[in-house]
Amino acid sequence: MLQDTKQDCLKRLNYIEGHLQGIRRMVDDDKYCVDVLKQTFALRRAIEKLEQIMLNGHLHSCVIEGVREGREDQVLGELLELYSLNQK
Amino acid sequence: MLQDTKQDCLKRLNYIEGHLQGIRRMVDDDKYCVDVLKQTFALRRAIEKLEQIMLNGHLHSCVIEGVREGREDQVLGELLELYSLNQK
Amino acid sequence: MLQDTKQDCLKRLNYIEGHLQGIRRMVDDDKYCVDVLKQTFALRRAIEKLEQIMLNGHLHSCVIEGVREGREDQVLGELLELYSLNQK
Amino acid sequence: MLQDTKQDCLKRLNYIEGHLQGIRRMVDDDKYCVDVLKQTFALRRAIEKLEQIMLNGHLHSCVIEGVREGREDQVLGELLELYSLNQK
Repeated sequence: MLQDTKQDCLKRLNYIEGHLQGIRRMVDDDKYCVDVLKQTFALRRAIEKLEQIMLNGHLHSCVIEGVREGREDQVLGELLELYSLNQK
Repeated sequence: MLQDTKQDCLKRLNYIEGHLQGIRRMVDDDKYCVDVLKQTFALRRAIEKLEQIMLNGHLHSCVIEGVREGREDQVLGELLELYSLNQK
Repeated sequence: MLQDTKQDCLKRLNYIEGHLQGIRRMVDDDKYCVDVLKQTFALRRAIEKLEQIMLNGHLHSCVIEGVREGREDQVLGELLELYSLNQK
Repeated sequence: MLQDTKQDCLKRLNYIEGHLQGIRRMVDDDKYCVDVLKQTFALRRAIEKLEQIMLNGHLHSCVIEGVREGREDQVLGELLELYSLNQK
């Protein structure tokens, strides 16, 4: 992973871990389910944003290299798989 | 679009149009909402499958060409945009 | 289905059918895949909006009646099934 | 929140926290982005499963009570909001 991407991802993972601990506290404290669910939705959005950062780094490193080195079947096959998994 | 991809897409669009007409008939005939909703979910899944076919063709034509011709910023930027739009 | 909901749904189905025909024309005319994909994403968003209208009508008719008539296991089970199917 | 639902949720939150720590380790150890992304997808699926458990508990407690006590506009409005937020 590119160093900039890696640092950005680790920072986002810190935030996501803090968010998750907040959700646990809400459940522990018997907060209203609807409010907890809104937070788990926001948590998933934060993970999706992390995924976009990772994918952007991946496209601009491994994918470009793969196409230039003749491994396009592998790198493009992986991209399609990620896209399909993301729709599930 | 590659000819094979195009023919596959047109065939799937036929199917999707038929499915949509079936859903209209269900609404016209006052079918149970839950049953109509299950069909609109299935319709969206069929559209997502169509998107995977189109994306696969796109990756193996425009994206490979773009990277080889030095337009990687454009084609990879588009891929990231599609991925993000798909998560919304 | 409530009459207001039904009329709204039929109007939206008209719009969705027109949108779908536009997408077929784009494929027929060999438009750029990325532009077609943005339209299929918008089409799915329109179907999701239709689903929200249907679900709203369903909640305020069948679900309320079901709970009042002691059929809560059925109507709430269906809601959970729809919610889970929607996440797939 | 019902006690059974709460215990199930806390157990799942433990699992999700462990999964998240595993993802951090993968990023720390410079694992292949595609493999990390597959794990973040799985993490989101685990959160969605947690949401289904919470929603099920919510339907069978607050929603039923709300409808019986004449607060159907509030509880059904919240359900529709959750459904719409989930589609975003």
